[in-house]
Amino acid sequence: MSHNSFGHLFRITTWGESHGPAIGCVIDGCPPGIPITEAEIQTFLDKRRPGQSKYTTQRKEPDTVEILSGVFETEDGEKVTTGTPIALQIKNVDARSKDYGDIKDKFRPGHADYTYFLKYGVRDWRGSGRASARETAVRVAAGAVARKVVPGLRVRGALVQIGPHQVDRGGLGLGRGRQQPLLLPEAKTARVWAAFLDEVRKSGSSAGAVIEVVAEGVPVGLGAPLYAKLDQDICSGLMSINAVKGVEIGAGFASAAFSGEENADEMRMHPNGTPEFMSNNAGGILGGISTGQPVVARFAVKPTSSILNTRKTIDMSGSDTEVSTKGRHDPCVGIRAVPIGEAMMALVLADHYLRHRGQTGQG
Amino acid sequence: MSHNSFGHLFRITTWGESHGPAIGCVIDGCPPGIPITEAEIQTFLDKRRPGQSKYTTQRKEPDTVEILSGVFETEDGEKVTTGTPIALQIKNVDARSKDYGDIKDKFRPGHADYTYFLKYGVRDWRGSGRASARETAVRVAAGAVARKVVPGLRVRGALVQIGPHQVDRGGLGLGRGRQQPLLLPEAKTARVWAAFLDEVRKSGSSAGAVIEVVAEGVPVGLGAPLYAKLDQDICSGLMSINAVKGVEIGAGFASAAFSGEENADEMRMHPNGTPEFMSNNAGGILGGISTGQPVVARFAVKPTSSILNTRKTIDMSGSDTEVSTKGRHDPCVGIRAVPIGEAMMALVLADHYLRHRGQTGQG
Amino acid sequence: MSHNSFGHLFRITTWGESHGPAIGCVIDGCPPGIPITEAEIQTFLDKRRPGQSKYTTQRKEPDTVEILSGVFETEDGEKVTTGTPIALQIKNVDARSKDYGDIKDKFRPGHADYTYFLKYGVRDWRGSGRASARETAVRVAAGAVARKVVPGLRVRGALVQIGPHQVDRGGLGLGRGRQQPLLLPEAKTARVWAAFLDEVRKSGSSAGAVIEVVAEGVPVGLGAPLYAKLDQDICSGLMSINAVKGVEIGAGFASAAFSGEENADEMRMHPNGTPEFMSNNAGGILGGISTGQPVVARFAVKPTSSILNTRKTIDMSGSDTEVSTKGRHDPCVGIRAVPIGEAMMALVLADHYLRHRGQTGQG
Amino acid sequence: MSHNSFGHLFRITTWGESHGPAIGCVIDGCPPGIPITEAEIQTFLDKRRPGQSKYTTQRKEPDTVEILSGVFETEDGEKVTTGTPIALQIKNVDARSKDYGDIKDKFRPGHADYTYFLKYGVRDWRGSGRASARETAVRVAAGAVARKVVPGLRVRGALVQIGPHQVDRGGLGLGRGRQQPLLLPEAKTARVWAAFLDEVRKSGSSAGAVIEVVAEGVPVGLGAPLYAKLDQDICSGLMSINAVKGVEIGAGFASAAFSGEENADEMRMHPNGTPEFMSNNAGGILGGISTGQPVVARFAVKPTSSILNTRKTIDMSGSDTEVSTKGRHDPCVGIRAVPIGEAMMALVLADHYLRHRGQTGQG
Repeated sequence: MSHNSFGHLFRITTWGESHGPAIGCVIDGCPPGIPITEAEIQTFLDKRRPGQSKYTTQRKEPDTVEILSGVFETEDGEKVTTGTPIALQIKNVDARSKDYGDIKDKFRPGHADYTYFLKYGVRDWRGSGRASARETAVRVAAGAVARKVVPGLRVRGALVQIGPHQVDRGGLGLGRGRQQPLLLPEAKTARVWAAFLDEVRKSGSSAGAVIEVVAEGVPVGLGAPLYAKLDQDICSGLMSINAVKGVEIGAGFASAAFSGEENADEMRMHPNGTPEFMSNNAGGILGGISTGQPVVARFAVKPTSSILNTRKTIDMSGSDTEVSTKGRHDPCVGIRAVPIGEAMMALVLADHYLRHRGQTGQG
Repeated sequence: MSHNSFGHLFRITTWGESHGPAIGCVIDGCPPGIPITEAEIQTFLDKRRPGQSKYTTQRKEPDTVEILSGVFETEDGEKVTTGTPIALQIKNVDARSKDYGDIKDKFRPGHADYTYFLKYGVRDWRGSGRASARETAVRVAAGAVARKVVPGLRVRGALVQIGPHQVDRGGLGLGRGRQQPLLLPEAKTARVWAAFLDEVRKSGSSAGAVIEVVAEGVPVGLGAPLYAKLDQDICSGLMSINAVKGVEIGAGFASAAFSGEENADEMRMHPNGTPEFMSNNAGGILGGISTGQPVVARFAVKPTSSILNTRKTIDMSGSDTEVSTKGRHDPCVGIRAVPIGEAMMALVLADHYLRHRGQTGQG
Repeated sequence: MSHNSFGHLFRITTWGESHGPAIGCVIDGCPPGIPITEAEIQTFLDKRRPGQSKYTTQRKEPDTVEILSGVFETEDGEKVTTGTPIALQIKNVDARSKDYGDIKDKFRPGHADYTYFLKYGVRDWRGSGRASARETAVRVAAGAVARKVVPGLRVRGALVQIGPHQVDRGGLGLGRGRQQPLLLPEAKTARVWAAFLDEVRKSGSSAGAVIEVVAEGVPVGLGAPLYAKLDQDICSGLMSINAVKGVEIGAGFASAAFSGEENADEMRMHPNGTPEFMSNNAGGILGGISTGQPVVARFAVKPTSSILNTRKTIDMSGSDTEVSTKGRHDPCVGIRAVPIGEAMMALVLADHYLRHRGQTGQG
Repeated sequence: MSHNSFGHLFRITTWGESHGPAIGCVIDGCPPGIPITEAEIQTFLDKRRPGQSKYTTQRKEPDTVEILSGVFETEDGEKVTTGTPIALQIKNVDARSKDYGDIKDKFRPGHADYTYFLKYGVRDWRGSGRASARETAVRVAAGAVARKVVPGLRVRGALVQIGPHQVDRGGLGLGRGRQQPLLLPEAKTARVWAAFLDEVRKSGSSAGAVIEVVAEGVPVGLGAPLYAKLDQDICSGLMSINAVKGVEIGAGFASAAFSGEENADEMRMHPNGTPEFMSNNAGGILGGISTGQPVVARFAVKPTSSILNTRKTIDMSGSDTEVSTKGRHDPCVGIRAVPIGEAMMALVLADHYLRHRGQTGQG
């Protein structure tokens, strides 16, 4: 069962609401002996942190992570994991619940208000409570640990579409992109996106996005044939992120229009004596198992549902009404979804790495 | 853990290889007292069965299902589930393993040959063994049981794209579609698809497809906020089907280009006093929980990797070679994926229905 | 997988070391709408708290529980569960790590020192780290919530043996017993046990115990036939408590010497028209499923391994040495195990109650 | 969730009723490359098979196991596991359902009849259906595979008590015992037990038993600190066997009467430079993790509930009645429980071996 847990051998369980005292997670099954510090986790949190540009929510959260268990300082002064559960916690500081007071009786379109209320009969309406994207901060923190579990793993994400504006795939340039506030691949696209987002923000609306996540250094053999396919678990992880409406691996939906010849990545022996794929439509996964190529996934984020413009809805007394969301929100939640997508990819790979090692003794 | 299991409270575990003596599954957690017969399950299997048209593999498999446990004939002569595990089994009849003899030492591009071998060090090469789409027959059988778990549930799928040819979304006409061999929505599209597939088949190539699955009668409240989102588990289920490379819910990838106003489905009170959504971009799910609207998912299937045309590859001795697949294969596996997608949708909904009832007492 | 989680639909995940900043747990799957306050949980923690008598460790821990998520104050001013994860946290206050400095290089007999070190290669030696019985405080806290999940449930435990001194079963008197510091059934036994424990404490030794836990108000039907038997999960829960070496249900080990006639509890119709068992050797469970009778379990706790008297052991350099434990320890950990056993019983019943309701719609 | 599954990385899911067409199980997660044949599994089944002596049921079941998937004959002619699910199946041959016709409306005391009926509303009354000990045949088959997963593992069980007659612990002689029909340690005890069982059988009654299972060659490090303790999972496995009412590890319940000095197993360095325990009260497990010593568990089996002598009960119409069981039954099910206990021990160790290897890379 997995209401609020993700993963099996390497598993996170998260807790916390947007406007409660704190949010946090427990990482269970992390191998022992991995050096990790709060500072190291913090660097990843800082990338996701709100308030860094005008395109993200102005909520000011330091998002300072504390490690409460599972890490021990050895006699050498190094902090390493002990194999026991690692509890991470981030205090909520800048929660302005009164911002939400006027909407506590209304079901905001596109939000979880209606479904939470009908399922549970009660909901913490302050800042969307558990449904808030604030929860993703702890995923990023846990992902920082997960990245260190698979030796040589590198996981990077980038925006490939904002609103209707796609990046030219050929020029993705993942590496450089991470230096820019928008995680942009190149200047020209950056200008188009920035202009578009300015317009969206001023108009009181919001925009969607598509994010690509690439994992390099993935060992061959991760995954399992049928209900624990590596691509299945990556998609599950990405779909678990708030506002995500679609996921794809490798060539994804485009592959439906390919011919069999175009689609099936040919192989040859590299002069150095190792097998080599001549393309990567498969996105690094065949039959649910990693091929050793980069693992490539993309996910689509819908426009932020919290918008300034009014939308028709109903209230808890069953009357028609309108709602306009005045809280501090990202005009495009997709921007901050980049490090979250990276974190989910890392979490899936860490879990499958341990499972693969368990079942086969490899790795 | 879930190498070969899917679901939690309602869970299937499947087994079997393409050319072994049989394939089967165990359904665990099915509620007691549900009337079910082999004949009823068989009607769903017959829809998936190969050899029904020139567009699907010519392997002749009767796919006769046997119920080996978990169903009991009461004194009234009715066969009902007992709450204990239901074992379903389908014998393999028309397995021609020698068809595959010439490729047992080669890694076929697009197939799981390479990754299985590197992961496990041994593989059943006959008809792709465990990686064969033959396993999906038992999913369809299990899905027939799952459909009966949620009262009032109707799950229907249809092709919406074959190769580059998309159906006009507006004219989907799911209901009628199921009468046609290609599960086609209308005559005009059917002719285009048929002509395209004839061409693909004659040229020794293959084509991909996109399938839409719609579930009606889904109670509000199924799913959970974060790592057991209903959409997440539907995507996981659909991605677990062989050859699937992408999945989306509701407006899916298209929602990335929507404005916030377009995307967020407005609500109003119906004159009959019940809440009503004015659109369904969300695909029937908000915050991971069902809204009561139809649940809509789509998934992309890559072209069949087994093609007559030669492709470059390597063999087990590490030499460059070529491969051409002469076995009996579907030119477009997407066609037979329709009932499989329906089955996975039903399995996810049955599981979440029981989980929701467990946690909240509703349903 | 369940390194540090227990339960399925109602599941706890615990974290924390004896001498870290805090310990805690996440309760996942708790039904919504259950009134719960920190004060209510605190009453159970206070029963387990150390330092309450001369027979328990003199470590002074206020064990103040904080609810960090999953509980919401409604407009009525009532605090209720929301269906989202409930994070409980208890700060560690009186941790004197230096007490343990002289034994950090020695493997204490009967403790987890040796096995933790060989498994993980590193261990938090301060106060036994994760292996400390301190973790059980959060079980008691979680158990306080679990008790409220099953309507009408009452769970009570009592010591039935300390060292070689057994209580007379006939005079158990569970209800009154809870008023006494030792949870004693009657004055005579209390005097024997107190004298025995005084002697044990003065001699620098320790003693074991047997605890009985009885759950009343358990609905009929909880459990499942084979690998989710109610008795199996109760035993699993009790065996997960530190220092427990045996568990039994109903007549337990004694039933091996019974005749078939003695053992099988006869039934009859009560004059009020309901079925009635004429004895309860089964301990309220038949075929893994609750009968509606009181559920009765017992578990044996070995003597505290931390004793003042010296024991032979080895150190981390692989040399023979001796060890004497001077930290503050319970001479009989069994005394404080009573509320922990109650908590585990409540956790198992809450989980099975939800599972039963999910699968069958009952309850 | 685990209604009918046991284990995590190495997991079995069983199915089948006593009088259905067959029983079986799926082994999921077995490592690839392990040589296994039907003949090898059969040797263990033959030990459990009914009808071998006058002290066990006279039902004649050949219990012939078939492997339906997951094992592949390599070019060398060796049959090895492939890493995919292994389906095992045993046909039911000698099912005489009419033997049970006269009790289908009565709830037999000590049986699961009453609880199954109240939980599920329907039950397969033929030969107890799913509640029959017949299911344990597939455990023994699965255990034969599990034994091969942990290199060097040896698991042996023996009766240590029948009715009130205990064996002298000192003279256990596990190895030799396996040659005898009753798995007896020595001739003198055998004569006492045989005489006792003759008397029990003639009197139409039944007797309980206690079985000890010892695993040698268990690597150090298996298990986990709290909710995946090795001893916890062994107890869970043994309690999942029909009719088991108690389980204990090492000194078990007896340890409650020990002093701290007696209980805590001292250590020293062996002259060959390896650490050595000077006793094994812990039963090979400290803090939930294996020490490298033999793992020792015992479990108590209640007397067979199916007895010839009449017992008071009620029927399905809610009237008082009597019942006498005339089917073919073991007077002491404990005798045939020996290989089942061994199988459960092997299953737990195989699972934890893979989990340990996964988390730590050891093994």
